[in-house]
Amino acid sequence: MATTKAYAVHNSTDPLQPWNFERREPGVNDVEFEILYCGVCHSDIHQVRNEWGGSIYPMVPGHEIVGKVTRVGTGVTKFKAGDTVGVGCFVDSCRTCDNCKDGQEQYCSNGHSQTYNSFEQDKVTPTYGGYSKSIVVNQDFVLHVSDKLPLDAVAPLLCAGITTYSPLKHWKIGKGHKVAVAGLGGLGHMAVKFAVSFGAEVTVLSTSANKEADALKLGAHKFVVIKDEAQLKSVTNYFDFIIDTISAEHDYVTYLSFLKTNGVQICVGAPPTPAAVHVFNLIGGRKSLAGSLVGGLPETQEMLDYCAEHNIVSDIELIDIKNVEDSYKRMLKGDVKYRFVIDMATLS
Amino acid sequence: MATTKAYAVHNSTDPLQPWNFERREPGVNDVEFEILYCGVCHSDIHQVRNEWGGSIYPMVPGHEIVGKVTRVGTGVTKFKAGDTVGVGCFVDSCRTCDNCKDGQEQYCSNGHSQTYNSFEQDKVTPTYGGYSKSIVVNQDFVLHVSDKLPLDAVAPLLCAGITTYSPLKHWKIGKGHKVAVAGLGGLGHMAVKFAVSFGAEVTVLSTSANKEADALKLGAHKFVVIKDEAQLKSVTNYFDFIIDTISAEHDYVTYLSFLKTNGVQICVGAPPTPAAVHVFNLIGGRKSLAGSLVGGLPETQEMLDYCAEHNIVSDIELIDIKNVEDSYKRMLKGDVKYRFVIDMATLS
Repeated sequence: MATTKAYAVHNSTDPLQPWNFERREPGVNDVEFEILYCGVCHSDIHQVRNEWGGSIYPMVPGHEIVGKVTRVGTGVTKFKAGDTVGVGCFVDSCRTCDNCKDGQEQYCSNGHSQTYNSFEQDKVTPTYGGYSKSIVVNQDFVLHVSDKLPLDAVAPLLCAGITTYSPLKHWKIGKGHKVAVAGLGGLGHMAVKFAVSFGAEVTVLSTSANKEADALKLGAHKFVVIKDEAQLKSVTNYFDFIIDTISAEHDYVTYLSFLKTNGVQICVGAPPTPAAVHVFNLIGGRKSLAGSLVGGLPETQEMLDYCAEHNIVSDIELIDIKNVEDSYKRMLKGDVKYRFVIDMATLS
Repeated sequence: MATTKAYAVHNSTDPLQPWNFERREPGVNDVEFEILYCGVCHSDIHQVRNEWGGSIYPMVPGHEIVGKVTRVGTGVTKFKAGDTVGVGCFVDSCRTCDNCKDGQEQYCSNGHSQTYNSFEQDKVTPTYGGYSKSIVVNQDFVLHVSDKLPLDAVAPLLCAGITTYSPLKHWKIGKGHKVAVAGLGGLGHMAVKFAVSFGAEVTVLSTSANKEADALKLGAHKFVVIKDEAQLKSVTNYFDFIIDTISAEHDYVTYLSFLKTNGVQICVGAPPTPAAVHVFNLIGGRKSLAGSLVGGLPETQEMLDYCAEHNIVSDIELIDIKNVEDSYKRMLKGDVKYRFVIDMATLS
């Protein structure tokens, strides 16, 4: 066991504060690495505050993790000390179900082990995430990260990146498609970058008129303010796909009306309350409301390699870990362009 | 103009009663035919009673129509007097939008002309449906019907048949797929026949335990009573597709839980109230909730030809038109196996 410094919460109302805990010694197939950067995901807030229920305390949040390998187990063939690596939203899975065998560990039928607020596959050992100095993860759940890119801006690719990359690839979205990105936050800004990179015509749908310049700078071709009736008409029956990154309550019927025949609204954000969907809105144009969850290991590696090749990273604001509570407050106000990343050197 | 006998309603509370009205003389491209049989669709009840709003009176319902050609216009090349023909849910469309050009007239962007309770493309001339002795329809919206099959049992193919055939074809459902058919009524029994014919493993999901023998007789491989917890467990994460034919309110979350990863619940029935769908239920397995509306002209002809080749028809109960109100009452109690068809010879 090796003592690791971290920031943690001990119940749903406490602030995040320094906490030292023991990481396991690297096993035969484990990779230990020093965490350099960890992104701050909106789901960290939900879980820290137990807004989804079932939170496990103490909790060390963080699942957008980049660092340098310090030690590897004797059976590790894929990594060596000094390698730059990443870990995303999960650190193990059953490895035996059809989805795991298919490299879709995010849909593991027996329940994958999330990077934090979860248990290892033994179902008793809690997992602790990336707001910490080091982590030990089985080599099969560790990803290679290119040193060509700024590593702080790579961290959010491990969640926000793969969450938007995966559905774009699954639905084969690219040239010839008209794609809307609903919501321009951590997920939305990555969806714009990828959809543009894949050759689609990209429109950002937002409730905030003041995000237009940013949307266009990110590469979007059009910008539509959701509250402007005239602008809404211009996109009725217009899109092949909507990447819906909004996790606040919103009117699904309105968004579905923007889809043309056979269009698909792909939800990667999920409001806490059920969506009210009139089935007529789907039937009338053979439309679909779909969901997508991060991505499997092979696809996450593919995404990281694609980003290195095409020079794609997240737009970030690097913060001191002491300011993580403040970053939560700013995120809840939408005051972030577009991802906070913790500089783990500030955790001392 | 030629006077035609029909059964019609004059407002939302009156019963159906005899009504004589004028059909147009066949124009250059029109086909006039004597109606032999007309199926009774659940949507007839909704529209007669104005349950969807916007009903146009007087209304002659009926959009599952089979008959024999009596006269054709001088420009008609596809049909001649004596031919056996059918007409389904619509009788014209804009013919210029992308969907119409693609043979997907059911999704006409400018609004197709439904067979009744609608207007011709001039947007002023009301359309009157199949509870009548004759009809005049542009040749492009008339279908060839094989005389190899019993024509009374063919009539429901024009709505119930194509409504279930089209999504099975669109989603390429067949061998290797596990398909659930939710609800065993007019649509459901056709979904079972087609899905079995296409080689899928078919399970009927029903709230009525007493439909099991019928489901198996129709070709289904399994039958699951939706209210039996143990049976429900056996189909959790089980199906590739659910063909949801239920038009009463039901719990979409439960049905979505029956889908495996990447599964699609295809709604062809629509409850009057919005579905409450928790987006987490879609995200967790990259699932989709989709809808599908009847089918276009080319696909409807393909379906009729497929049925003639594979000896597929609807299970029907032939009725006297005087009993059509009684048939509505029985349908509302679920007392129909599986479609009422009006013998138009009884309209005198």
